[in-house]
This record gives sequence, C-alpha cells and structure tokens, in this order.
Amino acid sequence: MEMDKYIVLGHGSGGKLSQELIRNIFLRYFDNDTLNALDDSAVLPIEGNEIAFTTDSFVVDPIIFPGGDIGKLAICGTVNDLAVMGAVPNYLSAGFILEEGLSLKTLENVVKSMANTAKQAGIKIVTGDTKVVHKGQCDQLFINTSGIGLINTKFKDNGNVEPGDAIIINGYIADHGMTIVGAREGLHLSSQIQSDCACLHTLIQALASEVEIKLARDVTRGGLATVLVELVQNSIYGIEILESAIPLRNETAGICDMLGFDPLHVANEGKLVMVVPEAQSEKAITVLKKHELGVNAAYIGNITKANPGKVVMNTVIGGKRMIQLLSGEQLPRIC
Amino acid sequence: MEMDKYIVLGHGSGGKLSQELIRNIFLRYFDNDTLNALDDSAVLPIEGNEIAFTTDSFVVDPIIFPGGDIGKLAICGTVNDLAVMGAVPNYLSAGFILEEGLSLKTLENVVKSMANTAKQAGIKIVTGDTKVVHKGQCDQLFINTSGIGLINTKFKDNGNVEPGDAIIINGYIADHGMTIVGAREGLHLSSQIQSDCACLHTLIQALASEVEIKLARDVTRGGLATVLVELVQNSIYGIEILESAIPLRNETAGICDMLGFDPLHVANEGKLVMVVPEAQSEKAITVLKKHELGVNAAYIGNITKANPGKVVMNTVIGGKRMIQLLSGEQLPRIC
Repeated sequence: MEMDKYIVLGHGSGGKLSQELIRNIFLRYFDNDTLNALDDSAVLPIEGNEIAFTTDSFVVDPIIFPGGDIGKLAICGTVNDLAVMGAVPNYLSAGFILEEGLSLKTLENVVKSMANTAKQAGIKIVTGDTKVVHKGQCDQLFINTSGIGLINTKFKDNGNVEPGDAIIINGYIADHGMTIVGAREGLHLSSQIQSDCACLHTLIQALASEVEIKLARDVTRGGLATVLVELVQNSIYGIEILESAIPLRNETAGICDMLGFDPLHVANEGKLVMVVPEAQSEKAITVLKKHELGVNAAYIGNITKANPGKVVMNTVIGGKRMIQLLSGEQLPRIC
Repeated sequence: MEMDKYIVLGHGSGGKLSQELIRNIFLRYFDNDTLNALDDSAVLPIEGNEIAFTTDSFVVDPIIFPGGDIGKLAICGTVNDLAVMGAVPNYLSAGFILEEGLSLKTLENVVKSMANTAKQAGIKIVTGDTKVVHKGQCDQLFINTSGIGLINTKFKDNGNVEPGDAIIINGYIADHGMTIVGAREGLHLSSQIQSDCACLHTLIQALASEVEIKLARDVTRGGLATVLVELVQNSIYGIEILESAIPLRNETAGICDMLGFDPLHVANEGKLVMVVPEAQSEKAITVLKKHELGVNAAYIGNITKANPGKVVMNTVIGGKRMIQLLSGEQLPRIC
C-alpha cells in the first residue's frame, strides 16, 4: 500500500498518521524519556533549574492572511508551546529557508511582523540561520522557531487529573483554519473571520496565579478533537464534552458546513485547553474572561471515570458522538 | 537592480550578500545585543549559569553523499556551533519539513543516521516537529536542528586576541564542498574524497584542557576565507596566512582546479579555526594531532598589527593575495 511506503500529507496532519510516524520512526530511533513524553516542550534540568525547550517549523500557505502572517505565527506558536509547560518564554531562534526569487520586501514584512510579535510577547530572538534554495525547491519561505524558557510559574503539568475535573477553553474554535481556507481559495466571504493567532503566555500566567491549572494544551493542528483525544488515549479516564458549550462563531460554523469541515478538527493558533479542579472552574472562567484573549472562555466538559481512553460528545441534537483523531489530512500547510 | 529586490542564491552563501541580508533585515528588526554579537551560538544567562543556544536549517543536496548524509550533518553542524562557544552540547531539537511522496525508507535512514551521530556525540534529541508540504513545494526533506549546551569548559571566547597569536586549523579544507559537487554532478572521480562532516566538541574539549584557546570558529559555508575575514573585518588587527601551510589534499585541490573553485571558499563540516597564544602553538598542534579529528592539524598563520581588518595570504609562488568574502554564491545547498 502506497501510504505505508511514502510520506503523504496526512503525516503532517497532527492526527493518526502523524502519531504513527512519530512512534514508528522518530521515537524508535531518538528514544529517550524526555522526547518520549511528547509534551509541547521538552523539560530539561540545567544546573538545578528546569527549562522548557521546543521547536516548530512553519510552512503556512498563504504566508499572509487575515489576522496574521507566517512571521507572527512562528513567534506565537513557539511561545505557546513553552507557555503550556508553565515556562516564561525567554529566547527564540529563527531559521529561514528562502526560495530564490522571493521579494525582499515580503521577507522584510515577515521579519518586521516577527519582531513586533516578539517584542509584545517580551521574548528575544537571539540566534538565527538563513538558507536559500533554488526557485521551485521550496514555496516562498519556511521558518523554524525554537524556543527556551525558564519554568517558574507555580503551574506545571503534573498529570494529577481526576474524574470530575473541568475542561475549559479560552474562546472560539476553528477560526484560524477557516481563515486560511478562505484566503487560499480566494473566497470573498461576507464574513470577517480572522485567524486567532496570539501569544497566550500572559493568559496562562494570569490564570495560574489564581487557579490550580492541572494541565494545559495548545490547540493547533488537528483541532480541539486531537487535543482531547491525546489527553486521554492512554489514560484510565475519559472525557465528556457538551457540543453546545463549545465556543464557535456562527460565521465559522457556516463556512465549515459549506466546505465540509468538522470544526472540532480545524486548526487554531490562539486556543488553550485547560484542566482545572471542578471547584475552581467558575473562578477560572472569571479570570479568563477578564483577559482579552479569554473573553469567550467556556467550560466545555469534564474528565470522567466512564469511557476510559475515549472522548464522548453530547451533541446538540441529544445524541452521543465518539470523537476521533483525523485519519488523513483535511487541510495541509495550515501552520 | 534585481539583486536589490529579490532573494538570490548568494544570500545563502555565507559571504557578502549573506552579511548584507543579516544586517539590513534581520539585525535591523530583531535588534538585541545577544543576536548582534553574531556568534555561532547565542550566550544566554539562565539563573546564574550561561547556556549556548543555536539553530541551523539543513537543505543539502544530495541528501546522502560520501562521508555523510543530511541527518549526520544536521547533528554535527549544531553540535559544532555549540562547541565553538565553549559549551558542552546537551540537547537538540529536530524539525522536519517533508515533501509528499518522500520514501519512508529514506526518512528512516536519515533519522537512523541522526540518532547514531547524536548517540556518539552524547547529545539527546528531546523535542521535534514535522510538517509535510505538497510534492514540489520542498525538495525531499529539510531539517532544522537547534541546540542548547551549558557553557562550562574553561575556554570561552573572550576576544583577547593579540598580534602574534597563532592561527590553527585541525585538518584538510574543502573536502565537504568538493564531495557534494562530485555527488551532485555524478562525477565518478577516481579519487576517494569524502565529506569531513564530524562533531568537534571532544576535540575542542581536549585542546581546552591543555591550551588557552582564545577563540574558535566552525569553518562551514564560505570556507576558511570567510571565517578569517569575519574574524578581523571589524578589528584593529589583521591576519597573515601562509598558503603552503594550509592542509589541502592533492585530490581536492585537483577537483577545485578542474571545476574552477577556490578551496579557501569551499565549505567544510568538520573544521575549526582556533586562535591560541604563539607560545602554546606547538603544544596545541601536538594535542590536536593525538585526536582522530586533528591528525592533520596545522599552524597556518598569525594575528598581525599590519593590515588591520584584512586577511593577507602569502602564496606558494611568493606573492601576496588579499582574501575576500564571496560576493555571490559558488555552490548552493551545500549544507
């Protein structure tokens, strides 16, 4: 079978094929406890301190879209991977692969956007690299950002999730993915949806100072569904979510419907899923709503004893749906 | 002029156009003291310690060549950038951009090579990322490795270079570049030259334990010429080197001659230039020669008061030649 022997777009989906590639090739050879944890960042001991270290390559197409561009995305994506591990993002690297013939003005605009986003986030770009390939050997520009941050907030993922714990998200899902689709297809939609691309570290820090965050995850490729499935797929607990509680703009839902996308699988770039004790859920929502990136925060479900390893959604029409990982790729080059 | 407005291959050469791109775009917007130092790694304070942090993207073509492959290169390149800053390489990230249709066997071989090289170097790959782009949007696979290491050897680049100091290199130049050219052009050369691709941290550590290393630089894109020019281009001192002292295999010199390359500008992936006090130069060579990666080490020149900011080479035919940066690109996708 072809798919067994060659890379297909689904290997980059964040879904089932991505997991297989990671397990069958990367973990098999690179095998070590830190990598095997498969967290958003590696947690490394450095002389009595713990630092978070993470990497992401960005290949989004188009490189400029409503609400952001590849440069902003490259900063936010890596900042968020550090932030969800309880780290204060400190330093970034930037590696560019440029296509011969790329306009210098385009590169400058992307770099300016990276610089602005980094400045706002309080993170420094301290080391870099540039490669140029012949025309046709990459598509305009690809960016890798790696980041390090000192873990020093009181929250650190400790895996002590229990049945009853509340699952919270900080706002509307699927806006990033549907914005990219719209920009790519040249759809002149009457709606004004924009990518939710944002650095979330101040939101997490604000929440961590008032509430016990048991766990936080950046919701990106593969969407909310993927994050939830990964949370419990090797766990003795399950997850139950309420479809009607999931924040989703009418416009975004409409575009998903029109184009046949499931919003639960559509990418986000400014969304977090957090698990907090049920008793603190109300306070968590209050704190999040005070932050500009959490105005539409919602309590969407719970950790359950029932259905271990599974994510079950109570649908708006009163049914139950088992949430799965994507088996292929619905939207390549989303980030 | 086209070159003023668009990316050309020379922007990735490591030479003059690379410097312009870095100065006019990257430093202009990312501006901070750590980045502005333009060292092989950033030196970062982390709670009383200093760590080195660096990034490199690898786009070498072909991906497998005599003496190495893109995976080995991706580990050695980043290890060496850490090592020349006096750091012990500790942790690496690996970011892959894969072309749809890439054979999984090829990917597996590259990953296996990375794993073996990392293991031998005593460095762990602790975090990663994978993106897949459509067929034709990249060329097989590109790899970014970023690395961090604790700076704790007694040697740390302190810029106290003085006239008279000896300039030393650990072996033959230009083998990597000429190997890639040979592999790319399908030249079935009777010679057996191989890439010098190697992790140099144990060599540096061995030397640092016996000799005062004032400064060390990884000699890669742009070749020996580029490293030497960069060493003094903003300095009150100059450099004088002796062409006859520079280690160069006859076969490599022959291929350079035949194809019109200047070996001083040809890439290496296992070479270091080190500056040591003149009085310790003999000991340095002795120590280097005991290490398998320094068997052909040589004392090639000195820091001078004369010709500030310039590199002058005393040629084999008794003349003097001013060594310059590459103004364009002689060999794209060399690393």
